[in-house]
Amino acid sequence: MRMVDIITKKRDGKEISDQEIQFFVDGYVKGDIPDYQVSAFLMAIVFKGMNTKEISTLTKLMMHSGDIINLDSIKGIKADKHSTGGVGDKTSLVLGPMVAACGLKIAKMSGRGLGHTGGTLDKMESIPHLKIEIDEKDFIKQVNEVGLAIVGQSGHLVPADKKLYALRDVTGTVESIPLIASSVMSKKLASGSDTILLDVKFGSGAFMKDLNSARELAKTMVAIGKSLNRDTRAILTDMEQPLGLAIGNSLEVQEAVLTLKNKGPSDLVNLCLEAGAIMLVQGKVVSTLDEGRKKLQEVLENGQAFLKLKEMVVAQGGDVTYLDDLSKFPTAKNIIALKSKKAGYISKIEALTIGECAMRLGAGRKTYADKIDMAAGIVLKKKVGDRVEVGEVLCVLETNGDEYIHILEDVLKAFIIVDKKVSLPPIVHEYIK
Amino acid sequence: MRMVDIITKKRDGKEISDQEIQFFVDGYVKGDIPDYQVSAFLMAIVFKGMNTKEISTLTKLMMHSGDIINLDSIKGIKADKHSTGGVGDKTSLVLGPMVAACGLKIAKMSGRGLGHTGGTLDKMESIPHLKIEIDEKDFIKQVNEVGLAIVGQSGHLVPADKKLYALRDVTGTVESIPLIASSVMSKKLASGSDTILLDVKFGSGAFMKDLNSARELAKTMVAIGKSLNRDTRAILTDMEQPLGLAIGNSLEVQEAVLTLKNKGPSDLVNLCLEAGAIMLVQGKVVSTLDEGRKKLQEVLENGQAFLKLKEMVVAQGGDVTYLDDLSKFPTAKNIIALKSKKAGYISKIEALTIGECAMRLGAGRKTYADKIDMAAGIVLKKKVGDRVEVGEVLCVLETNGDEYIHILEDVLKAFIIVDKKVSLPPIVHEYIK
Repeated sequence: MRMVDIITKKRDGKEISDQEIQFFVDGYVKGDIPDYQVSAFLMAIVFKGMNTKEISTLTKLMMHSGDIINLDSIKGIKADKHSTGGVGDKTSLVLGPMVAACGLKIAKMSGRGLGHTGGTLDKMESIPHLKIEIDEKDFIKQVNEVGLAIVGQSGHLVPADKKLYALRDVTGTVESIPLIASSVMSKKLASGSDTILLDVKFGSGAFMKDLNSARELAKTMVAIGKSLNRDTRAILTDMEQPLGLAIGNSLEVQEAVLTLKNKGPSDLVNLCLEAGAIMLVQGKVVSTLDEGRKKLQEVLENGQAFLKLKEMVVAQGGDVTYLDDLSKFPTAKNIIALKSKKAGYISKIEALTIGECAMRLGAGRKTYADKIDMAAGIVLKKKVGDRVEVGEVLCVLETNGDEYIHILEDVLKAFIIVDKKVSLPPIVHEYIK
Repeated sequence: MRMVDIITKKRDGKEISDQEIQFFVDGYVKGDIPDYQVSAFLMAIVFKGMNTKEISTLTKLMMHSGDIINLDSIKGIKADKHSTGGVGDKTSLVLGPMVAACGLKIAKMSGRGLGHTGGTLDKMESIPHLKIEIDEKDFIKQVNEVGLAIVGQSGHLVPADKKLYALRDVTGTVESIPLIASSVMSKKLASGSDTILLDVKFGSGAFMKDLNSARELAKTMVAIGKSLNRDTRAILTDMEQPLGLAIGNSLEVQEAVLTLKNKGPSDLVNLCLEAGAIMLVQGKVVSTLDEGRKKLQEVLENGQAFLKLKEMVVAQGGDVTYLDDLSKFPTAKNIIALKSKKAGYISKIEALTIGECAMRLGAGRKTYADKIDMAAGIVLKKKVGDRVEVGEVLCVLETNGDEYIHILEDVLKAFIIVDKKVSLPPIVHEYIK
């Protein structure tokens, strides 16, 4: 078998056999197949796609390219959720404690942020001493005892994806549904949970810019999960404007805490209730979505969800006093209120621009080598649908940097204000199962 | 500027600017841009193509990536021709001496064969002691004195193409008209001749399988040449069946000699008369194609064309006694006559199969590391249109190998024999200028 023939086959739109996909994955992980053949193959996939069978096989072989986490020693159904990434997306920090407080076991491996989207691990690290590198044994012990653990991905999980992702990043081959789907699903499947809920975001601040491509990606991933006998479902959620009010690491942790204390912004709360209800149904904790929503509302109101977050932070060595007293989180040197020059209704807050501006304020990385400023970010004071008057504060920028004039201008441009009242789209658009 | 952005731009079907093409060519030749980015870029070009401006710029920059041969010290118009490669294509060895005998200066750099097509240099090396590695000074001197030199490409000619071609060969990115056109034309332009005639072959034994793609390639190359102020023209010629009768290195040299002695097969003779007439018009030796054909017929009849070949062979150190006495060429150990099992008219001789079988008999290389058996090959006794009876010889296989049974079977299958009389297509289908 020769890699050049496999490339040519895909280029010509033919189906790649299981043996050929195996030859490719094995050869690439071992280093027998060079990057330059793989990148040409990936570009051919960008143009010619892959059918369901090819994607399933690729995902399965990638998943088996390294360690597979065995969660059998954890009692009950182990649930996982994954977001395709957005701006202000602190969902895992809220949803995890909520569903765990309802009795579901959450064994979650999370990632770092890059570009305009943040990563759960980075956010968690704004809590002093919190460990995210935890070995498999302690991870399993924590899930058994606390019911919830959110940790970094183990070093030997899906090495095929690590190599492929690094290559895709520099060869213009990131934007491909089969490649995104197999990358996400191979990691989810290797991390061993019984159920998977995918939060596929669409809109300006998301990877998928429109509902149709988000739906295609969601359906592809659900099909992969099902073909490998895993209860996999997806929701398509709005990422035209940032999620919630806070964008930036410790700012988002504080918002997560407020939300778990039942004082969260409505879009974030609604997303967590909807997603959580599905996870509780998947985990057989409840039998209907309505029952799920009710139970989740209860744990928000009775403090059990917040307690669960604190239990997890304690288990992972974090300083829990920060959660009880949010004023302990360091604030940035410069806190600038951005005021509206126009009266009207907010019709749009460009999530991509807000995400990029937060990154420029210090909240994110351009490359994996960059350091994050935990205190930096943006806090929205208005959301889409809100009325605003001239001189009213649209949002607050927080940064330790001093060159923020251009950022201020760009953030202002991200707010689109119109004369007519604006109706709010729902946060969850579709549920795919 | 980042290569990944250039890849993405091409992937999305946008035009690449001159500066971006320069960044790519310079960076790749210097080694700053890695193969894995270039192969992804090449695959994007396979799918999205390049417009005339992009192809011209790419060609010009590739041409300038190394040495440019300066032929100014040769008096008069220097002509070059290039064939896209076929089976039994010994045209250069016949056409070169013919047009040189008419007074045109031919300064030709040629290539090696790979796969089912042969290379002029390999064929020439079947003449003992003939040198094809000649330095630029001697090359120019020979063209000035003899009027004809066919040599190997200088080491520093178009290094960008050398690197790109090696990469394309293993990444499924050979089949792209912009890439083929820029590869051919950058070399032709760098070798410094004033006029270029492109023999673009189409059919089973050619790179371009049909007339339409051959026409597109020809038009693309002619446009490049014109955009760089070089008199560039093309002919589209038939490669459904092998050209002439002989396939294999010394066998083809012998056929070239016979043709120059005015005893050549009609398709080869016609091709050389048509191509030669165009070259003579390009070189302003004659003013009409008819005048050109007549002049060329004369040098075949009066022996001057054959004399010119001998002069070139002498100048390049070859043993010219072989040309006067063809029986001096070594013959292969096994000479097998393949007889027809069917009576009728030959409607097809699959050139690709014949080329591959000749290679398997020893006449060609599968990889650049393989050695060629100069005596091996196939000599056709019948061509398309000919009548054949049961038991009549279709062709003769010559080989020093002993495992030729399967090759024999395959060669037999390449001959398609039908009941009805078959009309012959012309060798030159179109003339593009």
